[in-house]
Amino acid sequence: MDTSAFVTSLATSFAIFIVLLFLYSWLSRTSSNFVIYYPLRISRGLGPPEDVKSRSPWAWLREAWQASEKEIIDLAGLDAAVYINFLDAVLQILGYSAFFCVPVLVPLAVTSDNYSTAVRAPTDPAFGGFDKLSMGNIAKKNKSRIWAFLIAAYWLSIVTYIVLWQKYKHIINVRDQVLSANARPEQFTVLVQNLPPPTNGTRSEQVDAFFRKLHPDAYEKCLVVTKLHKSSKLWTKLDSLKRKLKHAEAVFGQSKTKDKPEGIRPQHKTGFLGLVGAKVDTIDNSKEKIKDLSVKLQAEQKRTIAEEQEASAFAIFNNRAVAAEVSQSAIATIASKWRTSQAPEPEEIVWGNLSMPYLPQLFRKFGIYFLVFLIIIFYMIPISFVSALTSLDNLEKLVPFIKSIVKIKVLNTVLQAYLPQLALIIFLALLPSLLMFLSKLEGIVSHSHLVRATAGKYFYFNVVNVFLGVTISGTVFNALKKITKQPGQIVSLLDASLPPQASFFITYIALLYVFFVGYGLELSRLVPLIIFHIKKRFLCKTEEEIRDAWAPGPFNYHTHVPADMLIVTIAACYAVLAPMVLPFAIMYFALGWIIVRNQALKVYIPKYDSGGRMWPHMQARILAALVISQITMLGYFSVKKFVFSFLLFPLPIATLIFAYVCNKLFYTAFRVTPISLVSTDLKDMPSVASLVEAYTPTCLTPEDKFEDAEKFEDARSTATSRTSSGITSPA
Amino acid sequence: MDTSAFVTSLATSFAIFIVLLFLYSWLSRTSSNFVIYYPLRISRGLGPPEDVKSRSPWAWLREAWQASEKEIIDLAGLDAAVYINFLDAVLQILGYSAFFCVPVLVPLAVTSDNYSTAVRAPTDPAFGGFDKLSMGNIAKKNKSRIWAFLIAAYWLSIVTYIVLWQKYKHIINVRDQVLSANARPEQFTVLVQNLPPPTNGTRSEQVDAFFRKLHPDAYEKCLVVTKLHKSSKLWTKLDSLKRKLKHAEAVFGQSKTKDKPEGIRPQHKTGFLGLVGAKVDTIDNSKEKIKDLSVKLQAEQKRTIAEEQEASAFAIFNNRAVAAEVSQSAIATIASKWRTSQAPEPEEIVWGNLSMPYLPQLFRKFGIYFLVFLIIIFYMIPISFVSALTSLDNLEKLVPFIKSIVKIKVLNTVLQAYLPQLALIIFLALLPSLLMFLSKLEGIVSHSHLVRATAGKYFYFNVVNVFLGVTISGTVFNALKKITKQPGQIVSLLDASLPPQASFFITYIALLYVFFVGYGLELSRLVPLIIFHIKKRFLCKTEEEIRDAWAPGPFNYHTHVPADMLIVTIAACYAVLAPMVLPFAIMYFALGWIIVRNQALKVYIPKYDSGGRMWPHMQARILAALVISQITMLGYFSVKKFVFSFLLFPLPIATLIFAYVCNKLFYTAFRVTPISLVSTDLKDMPSVASLVEAYTPTCLTPEDKFEDAEKFEDARSTATSRTSSGITSPA
Repeated sequence: MDTSAFVTSLATSFAIFIVLLFLYSWLSRTSSNFVIYYPLRISRGLGPPEDVKSRSPWAWLREAWQASEKEIIDLAGLDAAVYINFLDAVLQILGYSAFFCVPVLVPLAVTSDNYSTAVRAPTDPAFGGFDKLSMGNIAKKNKSRIWAFLIAAYWLSIVTYIVLWQKYKHIINVRDQVLSANARPEQFTVLVQNLPPPTNGTRSEQVDAFFRKLHPDAYEKCLVVTKLHKSSKLWTKLDSLKRKLKHAEAVFGQSKTKDKPEGIRPQHKTGFLGLVGAKVDTIDNSKEKIKDLSVKLQAEQKRTIAEEQEASAFAIFNNRAVAAEVSQSAIATIASKWRTSQAPEPEEIVWGNLSMPYLPQLFRKFGIYFLVFLIIIFYMIPISFVSALTSLDNLEKLVPFIKSIVKIKVLNTVLQAYLPQLALIIFLALLPSLLMFLSKLEGIVSHSHLVRATAGKYFYFNVVNVFLGVTISGTVFNALKKITKQPGQIVSLLDASLPPQASFFITYIALLYVFFVGYGLELSRLVPLIIFHIKKRFLCKTEEEIRDAWAPGPFNYHTHVPADMLIVTIAACYAVLAPMVLPFAIMYFALGWIIVRNQALKVYIPKYDSGGRMWPHMQARILAALVISQITMLGYFSVKKFVFSFLLFPLPIATLIFAYVCNKLFYTAFRVTPISLVSTDLKDMPSVASLVEAYTPTCLTPEDKFEDAEKFEDARSTATSRTSSGITSPA
Repeated sequence: MDTSAFVTSLATSFAIFIVLLFLYSWLSRTSSNFVIYYPLRISRGLGPPEDVKSRSPWAWLREAWQASEKEIIDLAGLDAAVYINFLDAVLQILGYSAFFCVPVLVPLAVTSDNYSTAVRAPTDPAFGGFDKLSMGNIAKKNKSRIWAFLIAAYWLSIVTYIVLWQKYKHIINVRDQVLSANARPEQFTVLVQNLPPPTNGTRSEQVDAFFRKLHPDAYEKCLVVTKLHKSSKLWTKLDSLKRKLKHAEAVFGQSKTKDKPEGIRPQHKTGFLGLVGAKVDTIDNSKEKIKDLSVKLQAEQKRTIAEEQEASAFAIFNNRAVAAEVSQSAIATIASKWRTSQAPEPEEIVWGNLSMPYLPQLFRKFGIYFLVFLIIIFYMIPISFVSALTSLDNLEKLVPFIKSIVKIKVLNTVLQAYLPQLALIIFLALLPSLLMFLSKLEGIVSHSHLVRATAGKYFYFNVVNVFLGVTISGTVFNALKKITKQPGQIVSLLDASLPPQASFFITYIALLYVFFVGYGLELSRLVPLIIFHIKKRFLCKTEEEIRDAWAPGPFNYHTHVPADMLIVTIAACYAVLAPMVLPFAIMYFALGWIIVRNQALKVYIPKYDSGGRMWPHMQARILAALVISQITMLGYFSVKKFVFSFLLFPLPIATLIFAYVCNKLFYTAFRVTPISLVSTDLKDMPSVASLVEAYTPTCLTPEDKFEDAEKFEDARSTATSRTSSGITSPA
């Protein structure tokens, strides 16, 4: 692709973005679309903005810009605020870097003439335009100009340290205020895992005996975790029957027209998928089945509480400070027993992982790390295998009827060309879910931790594959080159990995291909809008079903953050070597910043709030990107045979020390709850009953509480994990 | 040195050992020597064994052999018991390894003929005798025999894992019993460091306010740490004056003979070193000065308590479990403030380090690690510099009067030859003290931790310099080779580093040179015995002075453990490649085991007890030695072009995983006090007053308590650090 093609592509995506922007301002004024554009405000009882019908097309921009951090935290929670702070930090780092690099380094490069005079010409002359703006155009003999780039390397590092240091302190402050002011149920609850078999008495007696002796005043009671497969199965069945009944009743109600005031009672067949079997009246049949199942569920609940107790429990205290102390203390001599930690927020508990035995879990973790390592390093192998398997010749043998399709010549050509790429694209699309699944197998007990673990793995996948490109030559690269026609990360991955001597600017394209269009789609929410309207028209009958159709999930941090981090890594690596990367990266993050603020304030409904525990991981990864960039620079300066390259040596070491110091000073407050935060007096303490209710899984809630609990659950769009295992309060 | 010289050297040191053994049995029967051979028993009020005059020369052997672990713990403390357990573990590992390696591998090697047929003959034919017993004698084509060595590598690793696993569990058990049964002052006391400046009120009010709110029932009071330079100086002066007075009184008393019943009053000159100035009566002069100083000290004590308070304090609780919880909890959000930890035992506090600001301390630590790294890598450079400086020519210029000495020809030759070596020997002798000094600068707050830190640094010095020898060829090696005439570690360091293709057996010599003689000297205590008798005869006049003359210190773990660890490293590295190293190493540790038991039961008087916290470090270092050995084997098997060498790859990884798992499971119980240990009820609780007294430094103890405190102090041979800073109890 030459420079003109680059400009064309940029202009095209910008045009699409503008169209989507106008679509957004127009669509978001229609009241039938409010649930798509303001779902968070609606679910919080605020409704769309007051001037929604008459507002200027840019009102959303002003609102997103002006919203204070407090508003964001109140509406969207600390997690969203921290994500915005992350974008903010990146913007600051890149902005301050550009402040030095662009006006100083670019003129130095453009007035040099290495490429026109040196033996080694740029590999692809088409990129000459951008190439002249990079360090590659500085001749080796031009020492004084190289010094400016070395100073820039220091500038970039120091700017990063200062920004991250201030952000860390700021986020800790914000977190402190939120945590100390609000009494959250997890602050009163300690998760005790890996209890040894009780020597005498029941599990709950065992836990009670220990904590009551230790904290007679502060300890209230414990909830032993139970296996819930059976109750959860029954509960899900009952729940879907209830939904079916409501749906049928709604259909019956709508069928009562003026002409036919008695209506048509909906019927269905009882057999496989409702296709075969005897026809029955849906309403009567459902009511009958619900009555049956309720009885069964009650019996199962009793049985579970009595017989399915596992080796972990939630200990409930009436004092936040004592709970925090207990959650940080080693109890047994062998650390695999009586492990305590602060309980996760009730909504984000991964019930199935609460009672894993310690050592097997540890080994499982090693196994999964090893597997992820293999996936990161050798991910091409299974894909090649699958593409070989799905090559047309093999498919013909496996699925004979495909032969008739293959005979069509055009189709044949297309399939031959795209089948292998398809395998790769499917793999990359499934990767986050695969990593999430693997993280879950590790035995992590909270969803927010799962998200962090997945984001970490995905980040390593990105980074290793960026740098694999540098070391692995020819074959793999060529195999993948074909896919560059597909916009997507894989392009940026491989293009960024071209050695710095070649043109860096292919990376820009990677940056630009997607983000204008991507952000436009994110803002205009065209896809959810269309799906919602189709569902509403053809499928939804009850209020509940309509709500389910529009309710958006929370932010997908586990895909958003690694994607952003890849851009950060590329920008940091080339900020000094080819400073023109900076304006594009800044544009990417500036747009991201404003759109994420808008979506946080109006759209996404968080299921839980981890209290911004993503931040230390984001900070660590920005520093990892910085270390990679510093090592790259060290290498490239050496390529330039610059004798003072050794002056770059202290930089990676300084980054490691900075990371260590930040970790030592600040990370503890994210890992555990500092006592001073929770030793302040509270105005309204939650009652023990409310804590017990919070930590009782839905499928063990007594029938009479079902209806309320259900409504509540729906409002936060039920976490699927909530029904796979659970806890029981001993009578 | 050829084989016969090796045997001669071995026989000589064995003969010396036997002589020393007999000397020991003979000398230890004389009652004037009891204080040298049974000081621990005497200071514990037990006296020498009952049959001491009539016992067989081997009675000590039986006693050391039969003593139960409980006896050792009761007499010598947990630290000594753990050191013995360490020797025990090493013995077991080497013993089980030898059980396979010696009878299987040695015959396989001896019946091979690589050295007689292969092109590459052993570098030094003199070692042929031992060389034939090593893996070097297996020909490359002899795959089936190499398999046996590979199995041995697995055997060695698995044996190590099993022994270390059991030992760790055993030591944790023993530690549990000791810690939970005995109420020790440090269990009730929490050290709070890096307090922020109090917003209103005094330091002690600040600490009181926080803990009283958190634990109104369990918290008693706090002792703020103060700067004590001045009081400590006065106290030391006063103390030495009191000793001087007692000495003078004793001299005066002894001078009252029958002929001269009035005696001679001792006198001294008041000027520099007692050499110049007016002559005064020592007794009167001292009494006067003591009166003066007492008044000054009291004033200084008051001033210190009021004005010299620092940013740390000891918080005293009446409940061990609560104190343990508080000591494990993060209190402030920024981890550099309100840092809590279990207080060190009063006797082992490094007062001067209690109040270091956090970040400066962290950077200081980095600086010291870097310095130690430089010392380990480049330790030859300053030594060469010093030896160059102390070469005769330079010395002549610097110290002119040396010229006359140099003129004597024999002396000149000797000095020319030995001056550089002398510099190295002095450096190696001073190294432990240097490392201890550097560790103290790190800001470590307890002596036992200092010992561990020093032992760690010393271990790395040993290991790196063993393996430097492998990589750095010729020059450095040759420079050092001259010193091999000096028995000492440097021999073993360099000889062990010869590449495995050469003869490994030089290492044996290193093992054997020293240990027979060394252990003989250790047991017979000839040097302390002679010093004691000289001091007693010519210097000591008071009871106190005589006690000081015989009182032995505690075990010097910071030199003993790394020295042992070097042998472990060598033995582990060559156990498979040259199994004949094993019998010698086993002999070394067997002898060490029995002699250390004897010394622990009868001689060394521990100053404090860290509760065996040395163990995790010992275990980690045994595993480090194992990893080094596994990597060496991997390399050597590859040299043999054995295609299944890759089967050795899992071993180092397994060792790392084993270390990680042990750390996860067991280390917590050493790092902090598990709550379950200290939540048992105690029969006799120490009073708060006794705790306050324990954590008040001697130089702040009121005058009237001095005499008792002093006696007590003497009995445990005053720790010098005890008087450099201290704490004060607010009135």
